[in-house]
Amino acid sequence: MLKKVLLLLSVMASLLLLFGSTVSAQEVSSLAGELYQYHRGQDVFFMFMMVAFLMLFIKKFEWSVTLVTMIVLSVSFPFYFLIQTSFLGAAGDIEMVILGIVMAITLIISAGMWLGQIKTWQYIVVSILFVIAYSVNEFFLFTFLDGVADAGGSLLVHAFAAYFGWGVILALRHKKILDTPMDVTVHSVSFVWLASMLLWMLWPSFTTALLPPDQVIPGMITTFMALMASALISYLVLLAIQKKIDPLVYTYAILAGGVTIGSTVDLVGPWAAYGIGIVAGIVSCLCFVYLHPALEKLLGVRDVMGVHNLHGVPGLLGALFAIPYAGGVQITAAVGTLVIGLITGLVSGFILRALGRNEEYVLDDEEAFSMEEPRAADIAGPTGGPSVSV
Amino acid sequence: MLKKVLLLLSVMASLLLLFGSTVSAQEVSSLAGELYQYHRGQDVFFMFMMVAFLMLFIKKFEWSVTLVTMIVLSVSFPFYFLIQTSFLGAAGDIEMVILGIVMAITLIISAGMWLGQIKTWQYIVVSILFVIAYSVNEFFLFTFLDGVADAGGSLLVHAFAAYFGWGVILALRHKKILDTPMDVTVHSVSFVWLASMLLWMLWPSFTTALLPPDQVIPGMITTFMALMASALISYLVLLAIQKKIDPLVYTYAILAGGVTIGSTVDLVGPWAAYGIGIVAGIVSCLCFVYLHPALEKLLGVRDVMGVHNLHGVPGLLGALFAIPYAGGVQITAAVGTLVIGLITGLVSGFILRALGRNEEYVLDDEEAFSMEEPRAADIAGPTGGPSVSV
Amino acid sequence: MLKKVLLLLSVMASLLLLFGSTVSAQEVSSLAGELYQYHRGQDVFFMFMMVAFLMLFIKKFEWSVTLVTMIVLSVSFPFYFLIQTSFLGAAGDIEMVILGIVMAITLIISAGMWLGQIKTWQYIVVSILFVIAYSVNEFFLFTFLDGVADAGGSLLVHAFAAYFGWGVILALRHKKILDTPMDVTVHSVSFVWLASMLLWMLWPSFTTALLPPDQVIPGMITTFMALMASALISYLVLLAIQKKIDPLVYTYAILAGGVTIGSTVDLVGPWAAYGIGIVAGIVSCLCFVYLHPALEKLLGVRDVMGVHNLHGVPGLLGALFAIPYAGGVQITAAVGTLVIGLITGLVSGFILRALGRNEEYVLDDEEAFSMEEPRAADIAGPTGGPSVSV
Repeated sequence: MLKKVLLLLSVMASLLLLFGSTVSAQEVSSLAGELYQYHRGQDVFFMFMMVAFLMLFIKKFEWSVTLVTMIVLSVSFPFYFLIQTSFLGAAGDIEMVILGIVMAITLIISAGMWLGQIKTWQYIVVSILFVIAYSVNEFFLFTFLDGVADAGGSLLVHAFAAYFGWGVILALRHKKILDTPMDVTVHSVSFVWLASMLLWMLWPSFTTALLPPDQVIPGMITTFMALMASALISYLVLLAIQKKIDPLVYTYAILAGGVTIGSTVDLVGPWAAYGIGIVAGIVSCLCFVYLHPALEKLLGVRDVMGVHNLHGVPGLLGALFAIPYAGGVQITAAVGTLVIGLITGLVSGFILRALGRNEEYVLDDEEAFSMEEPRAADIAGPTGGPSVSV
Repeated sequence: MLKKVLLLLSVMASLLLLFGSTVSAQEVSSLAGELYQYHRGQDVFFMFMMVAFLMLFIKKFEWSVTLVTMIVLSVSFPFYFLIQTSFLGAAGDIEMVILGIVMAITLIISAGMWLGQIKTWQYIVVSILFVIAYSVNEFFLFTFLDGVADAGGSLLVHAFAAYFGWGVILALRHKKILDTPMDVTVHSVSFVWLASMLLWMLWPSFTTALLPPDQVIPGMITTFMALMASALISYLVLLAIQKKIDPLVYTYAILAGGVTIGSTVDLVGPWAAYGIGIVAGIVSCLCFVYLHPALEKLLGVRDVMGVHNLHGVPGLLGALFAIPYAGGVQITAAVGTLVIGLITGLVSGFILRALGRNEEYVLDDEEAFSMEEPRAADIAGPTGGPSVSV
Repeated sequence: MLKKVLLLLSVMASLLLLFGSTVSAQEVSSLAGELYQYHRGQDVFFMFMMVAFLMLFIKKFEWSVTLVTMIVLSVSFPFYFLIQTSFLGAAGDIEMVILGIVMAITLIISAGMWLGQIKTWQYIVVSILFVIAYSVNEFFLFTFLDGVADAGGSLLVHAFAAYFGWGVILALRHKKILDTPMDVTVHSVSFVWLASMLLWMLWPSFTTALLPPDQVIPGMITTFMALMASALISYLVLLAIQKKIDPLVYTYAILAGGVTIGSTVDLVGPWAAYGIGIVAGIVSCLCFVYLHPALEKLLGVRDVMGVHNLHGVPGLLGALFAIPYAGGVQITAAVGTLVIGLITGLVSGFILRALGRNEEYVLDDEEAFSMEEPRAADIAGPTGGPSVSV
């Protein structure tokens, strides 16, 4: 009897081995899968830091941008992690880490709209408010609605960042905004090039961070195709309408393909992705050149880093490109994200205003930092080294 | 009867399992293998961007270098991908992506020789021409010839980049080249250090990108050993012959070990690699200090970024180091690459010239960019932010 | 008989397969494990380069910092690799590569204390001496002692770097140290921000580089939690005691959580890690603001980059946090590291002194580099390009 059982067992196992072997060549163990995600997750952290350097072009405001970047990350991530793992029953695993840094990226993108419009310590407050707002939209997109296509975050990240940002700056409404000078230098713009080019090449890790293993390589290819299309078309569009290239438009618009492909990264092939990138690049350039100054004049507020032109409109556009695959729910999802973003942004903005807003734009590190000399001139006077504040 | 068949099956399977188990510990599934390549591939994209920053030392030309980098990538990669997958029957997989970015790296290295010598829009034309030329050499090395050792691209990438570049600048032949000023600043050179040091540490991902999984770690070790040897010897050689270090020679020459180890990365051990790196570093330094000005005087053309000194000669040298392993075919391969590079480069250069070359060197962003103030002085006047071109 | 043996074999194999299958989902093959380590290892090389840029704030000394970084790596790594694989019987595998770059990181951190206090060529000498000293401490911690908790290197790397450094500068004792000017510029500090923020996000690859696969993700989470805590608390502490933020304290102190979590990275949960990061950030800031000038006055030597404040004290602290898990051996380990570091550092310092020390601080690239013009002004006169030394 035992012999028969053993024989049966061994036959079953053997069949499993023989017929399972071709399948297993296409599988990765759950631990291996997590370790792959570790590195894609690290790439997204890298991108988070690069978003700060993408906004580093105002020479007198370089250090505040980086300081604020570290503050919002260090407040929002642990708070989001706490809510998710303690109250919403999520596991504290690599998926959670990636979801957390994706949330934080959305926040720092959004911060590009109100930089200089709130005090430094208020970034702690807005980080808390943002986590709540973002969680509402996340629930709306993936729990309330069903079947929304947004694997690469066109809506969840980019569109939400822009419309939350609009809410905040509309609520804050600084008067002297439009004539605050923003001096740039050759090298401050070179830092922006560095950040833009690294964000560009890291982008596939963002759009594929949560895809199943067998969709990662196809997603990498569609993402790069969309990015290449917008890098080429942005040059041609700016050349056509401005004769010369504005580096602070070009370095942003080349990323538009990555923003717009977010909703269809796992749905389209390489050449459809190229087409999507072409449209995204054109739209983003036109937003920077025509829509941006028009909205600024109309609304009297400034989107400091042009977030709406790279993330807002191209993000909504990305959702619409997925309609052939996911249906009309994409429209509901896009409109909902816009509305939730605007409302939660307005509420957050009024809370910030109640806490005492800046009277005017402060695009100068002076608010937060000492070291007047290096900020005033190009070469500082003697300082006592890293340990001595001057 | 069935029982016997089952028994036989299960015995076969079991033997496979028992005796196969030590082997399987040394294998990775095909999907897992692709996901490893994803990250090495991403490192090569990272390197592509860093090549731009390695050439960022001419302060007035910083933004043109980065613009051109994005243009050539966005034109050449999709064109190469199209040819390979549509006409040559290649699969659009991770290997294809890596082959594509390796091609694009070859192009941007080569561009270092003719930067400022053609108009910005002509980079679109030269990218198309380059893809064809590169494909010819790729066919020559790995299909026409048999058994060429070049896993890390000493010939395919480095030597071809340099000799295609020679072809282009010989065809263009600008008159006022030798007295065009190239102002550098401390920080523009610091960007070069950043790029050089990151290229240095990313290099093993380049040389092992297409190696079988079990050769990746040994390849990493030989690559690092060669790089360390050239980083040390370059310091000693420059100190000996110039007393002080020229940072724009040193930051390039420390990479020579990586160039030269390309053909033997999977063939030699760590200490042979160290020896190869020593020779590569010495040769590269001597090329920068002695050969470069001699060729410039002799031929009346300028290799702007010294591509020949880092990629040309050390690339050919790398091929020769593989003769003990691959035989005389290495000589044929090296000579062939030199000839194909020169001829296709000359043809491309004459086409560019026919399209209307610059009358003189334009090592100034002025051709492509607005924003005169930041380029003229160090601190710009007020600008309207990212959305307004000044 | 044969049939019975075959049956037995096949039963054994089948049981192995059936009961091993759930386990194997949590396992990675040894080759796969090495390939994961490849990428974490590359991240540590990335961090090594970033340590150089973290020290790039003295504008006139930027290129010497990077030059020295490449020299110490290229001397110490091959020497350590040689000793380990030729004399101590270690395999030349990925673990060895990671151990080697971890050693080199310890050296470049330590060099932050004596930068400008020895001649450039002396870095070759000190690299050899350091490898011996480091190996002694490595032997003490993990072979002589038993059960020391230090997976992420609080003692092995950070504390040892600082106390070896103290030994060196106490032996060298330059007179005119305290009034050497250290001019910084906006952009030289921006490079420090870049380095600090990338080190911050790469840190988990350092602390988990040698952990077993199943502890990598938990280790990533504890590391990030500790880092976030110190990034937030450092802002609050500096704001409280200085009203404004000194960027050259903040960019260093935000890393303190990563230093201190080193000994407990695989032992504590996310929120305990957050607590450890809070304490680490507070301690590091207080060291920068109060302890540093006090020690400088007391001992008459300068820790140029504030290594003691970020690595020394927070490193020892990290060892102590592991006492609840590893017991009193942590105290022995911490005291031993301090003593071995100081003694070997003193010996090395006296050897360097005997070789002819600088008479004073040389925080100027002038010692090593030509190119006076770009170093003197911000824009250089005409140079002949990368191939011509001016």
